Amino acid sequence: MTDPHQLKQYIRNVVDFPKPGIMFRDITPLLANPLAFGEVIDRFAEEFASAKPTAILAAESRGFIFAAPLALRLGASFVPVRKPGKLPHKTRQFRYDLEYGSDTLEMHIDALEPGSRVLLIDDLLATGGTIEACLRLAELSGAEVVGLGFLIELSFLQGRKRLQPHRIVSLIDYDSEA
Amino acid sequence: MTDPHQLKQYIRNVVDFPKPGIMFRDITPLLANPLAFGEVIDRFAEEFASAKPTAILAAESRGFIFAAPLALRLGASFVPVRKPGKLPHKTRQFRYDLEYGSDTLEMHIDALEPGSRVLLIDDLLATGGTIEACLRLAELSGAEVVGLGFLIELSFLQGRKRLQPHRIVSLIDYDSEA
Repeated sequence: MTDPHQLKQYIRNVVDFPKPGIMFRDITPLLANPLAFGEVIDRFAEEFASAKPTAILAAESRGFIFAAPLALRLGASFVPVRKPGKLPHKTRQFRYDLEYGSDTLEMHIDALEPGSRVLLIDDLLATGGTIEACLRLAELSGAEVVGLGFLIELSFLQGRKRLQPHRIVSLIDYDSEA
Repeated sequence: MTDPHQLKQYIRNVVDFPKPGIMFRDITPLLANPLAFGEVIDRFAEEFASAKPTAILAAESRGFIFAAPLALRLGASFVPVRKPGKLPHKTRQFRYDLEYGSDTLEMHIDALEPGSRVLLIDDLLATGGTIEACLRLAELSGAEVVGLGFLIELSFLQGRKRLQPHRIVSLIDYDSEA
């Protein structure tokens, strides 16, 4: 995990958001800078081109921002995973636990053909609940997961443990809340 | 409004979604086809390059899918407009009326500098409530709106009336619910 082009300088730290004690990593300054944003897509493309993904899968909303340009770059399908009730065709659901309660994500049942080579993309790897739901939805479709890419990893939350044994690439790391 | 490359064939019609009597225009088959998806970005880029936008603004979630690649293509900032409580920095809000009740969208107050040239992108122009909220948020920032682009326009709902006098480009038109 290296950051030769100092992408971290485009991340704004917002204290106590969304609740006290949490340092939120705000990606909007990076999105505002087309060179920095383009660098992110370049890096993902370099890391994953050799895995020959046929589909890039991402959960709404921020995951879409990186997965859509990457799908176009790699000539792959873009597959949205959404909150319940948003996708109009027949869906498969996966429910996952949160700190308090649970959440559910959906994917169209015809979004991935068996044998698809799927790359999962999100802006952030924290505890890994969202991306694990995406992983399970992809596996339930009979697809092969060929990698997972994150702009930011909060490595102190150890979310990557639940994503084994897949290849994980994150471009920016924070090893503490500070 | 022309569709020489027959983008409409990649839109799936889903009857009675999200409620009886509504024909939902499902864009996921288009997103699954990188040539069709790429064609959309090419078309938007051709239509709007000469307007020299410095920022591409879109509301979550589906707007992000088209605005992010277009921002990269045109070398412009990508500016997300989100539902309340999602953006961590100081925001400006705009509330707009729905058929029943109202909804609110937010943008970071520092997302657009005065004098920015803003292009608004969304997947769908229906009655125009969401995009009008984006338009007002851009104007409240002192930015100049240089155009509005939609993948799909439901022209029978006459949403473009409330978006005058701006230039509007839509790539696919439906002139009735059927």
